[in-house]
Amino acid sequence: MPTFQTVRGMRDLLGEEARVFTGIISKARETARLYGYREVITPCVESYELLGAKSGEEIRQRMFIFKDLGDRNVALRPEFTASIARLATTALKNEPKPLRLFSVGSVYRYDEPQRGRYREFWQSNFEVMGSSQPEADAEIVLLTDSFMGSLGLQGYAFKIGNIGIIRGILSQEGVDEKTQNAILQRIDKKDYEEAFKLAPTNKCRGMLEGLLELKSSDCFETVQKIKDYVACYMAARAAADKLGDIVKLVVESGCPVAEVEPAFARGLEYYTGMIFEVYIPELEIALGGGGRYDRLIELFGGEPTPAVGCAHGIDRISLALQTQKTTVGIEKEKRVLVLAVSDGLKVEALKVAQQLRQSGATVEFEVMGRKMRKALEDADKRKVDYAVIVGERELKEGCVILKDLTKREQDIVALKELPRKIAR
Amino acid sequence: MPTFQTVRGMRDLLGEEARVFTGIISKARETARLYGYREVITPCVESYELLGAKSGEEIRQRMFIFKDLGDRNVALRPEFTASIARLATTALKNEPKPLRLFSVGSVYRYDEPQRGRYREFWQSNFEVMGSSQPEADAEIVLLTDSFMGSLGLQGYAFKIGNIGIIRGILSQEGVDEKTQNAILQRIDKKDYEEAFKLAPTNKCRGMLEGLLELKSSDCFETVQKIKDYVACYMAARAAADKLGDIVKLVVESGCPVAEVEPAFARGLEYYTGMIFEVYIPELEIALGGGGRYDRLIELFGGEPTPAVGCAHGIDRISLALQTQKTTVGIEKEKRVLVLAVSDGLKVEALKVAQQLRQSGATVEFEVMGRKMRKALEDADKRKVDYAVIVGERELKEGCVILKDLTKREQDIVALKELPRKIAR
Repeated sequence: MPTFQTVRGMRDLLGEEARVFTGIISKARETARLYGYREVITPCVESYELLGAKSGEEIRQRMFIFKDLGDRNVALRPEFTASIARLATTALKNEPKPLRLFSVGSVYRYDEPQRGRYREFWQSNFEVMGSSQPEADAEIVLLTDSFMGSLGLQGYAFKIGNIGIIRGILSQEGVDEKTQNAILQRIDKKDYEEAFKLAPTNKCRGMLEGLLELKSSDCFETVQKIKDYVACYMAARAAADKLGDIVKLVVESGCPVAEVEPAFARGLEYYTGMIFEVYIPELEIALGGGGRYDRLIELFGGEPTPAVGCAHGIDRISLALQTQKTTVGIEKEKRVLVLAVSDGLKVEALKVAQQLRQSGATVEFEVMGRKMRKALEDADKRKVDYAVIVGERELKEGCVILKDLTKREQDIVALKELPRKIAR
Repeated sequence: MPTFQTVRGMRDLLGEEARVFTGIISKARETARLYGYREVITPCVESYELLGAKSGEEIRQRMFIFKDLGDRNVALRPEFTASIARLATTALKNEPKPLRLFSVGSVYRYDEPQRGRYREFWQSNFEVMGSSQPEADAEIVLLTDSFMGSLGLQGYAFKIGNIGIIRGILSQEGVDEKTQNAILQRIDKKDYEEAFKLAPTNKCRGMLEGLLELKSSDCFETVQKIKDYVACYMAARAAADKLGDIVKLVVESGCPVAEVEPAFARGLEYYTGMIFEVYIPELEIALGGGGRYDRLIELFGGEPTPAVGCAHGIDRISLALQTQKTTVGIEKEKRVLVLAVSDGLKVEALKVAQQLRQSGATVEFEVMGRKMRKALEDADKRKVDYAVIVGERELKEGCVILKDLTKREQDIVALKELPRKIAR
């Protein structure tokens, strides 16, 4: 039989990479705790109808869709928000607002695999539901800031906009929603030329093109320019005002906003207001992003509920940490090998191992049936810190031999002293 | 649009249930650390060829199988061991032995949903590869013991056997592997009558039936009875000897073995030696189990590598904790609400919130734009512990108002004293 491989686009996380992943996830969970977001665990498999409803054409085409054995149309979730919105319309519909929810797990999109992009990837996801206030938008940006900061990432910065600016212009120019979505999808890909071609009139095209020229190095100046530029477009103007309120809250709270982007769009169709992304200078892909989606829960059959949320790409954050040679503050624990001098002492040695584990030490028990010399040589090669040798003579005195494999010293140590001697 | 539901057999984990789940998972991860098992993260989607290879007919028929957009036959993993064995034949094939690996995540089987059984469920998984010694088998049982103990489960106990006993008898009686698998599958379901009907001769049937009568209340006595009973069946006798060695190691290390089961089988086809399960008295389903699989890695195209592993059902453990009214030692953190007296102070209030989070407190910021009285009433109803009110007058003195919502007291507190006043 030939050796098996992972399916194309899927990958294993091993060794240090897996440690970094679980480290990032635990920082995300800690961020959720600090901001009062309750964790929920939703299934990877959801109905296609749910996942396809408002994710946008592009994501719909890249979903893993199939029929289960009961002939149901199901798919692997391409993101979390649809599942969270489902919860908000069912099990959690009577919860007091704001409802703050956190999730973390794998999501699936059939993309062309490349560096930092896989078909199974991991996200941490935060949603706050029930508030239309700029404080809610600001909170989602600020918690992303806290999360990135807690990981030790350097020089990360935010890009903020409001999808309502472009939609406001397009709606007032009479552009239907489908065309709006097509335009936004291209803008998201920075395919501005292709996007603007879809504008139905020269005036409309001109308005969109003009947005690109408003960016200044000062956030507040850009906001003011947008407000002036869209002054005659009611909805766009309201969006610009909201954006201004949010930018004020986040910038003055010390969050590093690099740019306010007037012509900003993101891949998902359900956004209705503020949108943002976070980057580090060394990578072109966003480490996370999100935005406001005030109509999704209603569209899913719930009460009208304003909401804002974000997702962070664990894979990309891992790549960012690697690029910046940072290590999520994972401390390597001391490792101990426990072995018996003879077969008759195996049970005694096992007991010593269990006792050490109870004190919190990482203990490998010798399970290869090797002679002591070979086992110690191997432990040395694998950079194990200590060996605890259980021998008859020492055991009679309530002692074992403790070898410090780094310092190449050894000592006879009382069993009850052992945990203290092995400093974690 | 009607409200969306979860797909049949899938479910959401909310509130306390989600907390218990993540609590169990973190105890599993801690057990892995204590025993020196390195975590690996493998994909949920694997090739059908891999997952179907040695899992057994029953699991094969209940897998979620589909084609990806590249027309590949893929499936959602029904368990972890196939993926880990794949790693042992590819990326990790040159790692020093023993290779100890830990995984945790969701797995998928199309079973009829019932209490404690879902189509997406969660497992923690431990494998030690490279050792054929009884110490390795014992280690897998002992770490399961440590894991169950760390969760605070009461009265759990192990059932241990060796698949080699039945297989040894059947092989020597000339029963082909396919029939062996069919017999073992029925024994696993305790369908003894149906199982024994498949025995090709009366002698063979008699041998199997006789196994059921060997069980005694004393583990070592049962082992001795098995050894005597299968004395003329070389392979079965060797299996009984191995079982005896393992039982000795685990029982004498203090692990609660309730019974040695002579006619023990488990659902997976790849087992070759010791098998075990762990139960609590209140539930009929096993909380975890595993066994030795010495030929799987070779079958997958790797070097012959003896191996033993186990999986623990997080859902079932959660059910067990609930049944025993135990709570994984999750401590509830103090919750703080921060709010501004007026709109003009929102940024200042946000800064106070951020400062408190930096000190480790769980802080909810008022994002609903409510009047103070309403926000405080709501916080009270939701059993928030403290409210921090940011007002102009106090802020000028570097202070805020701290309301203890439990004691119904309030005080003016200096900002730098605030973290200390809010004991976590």
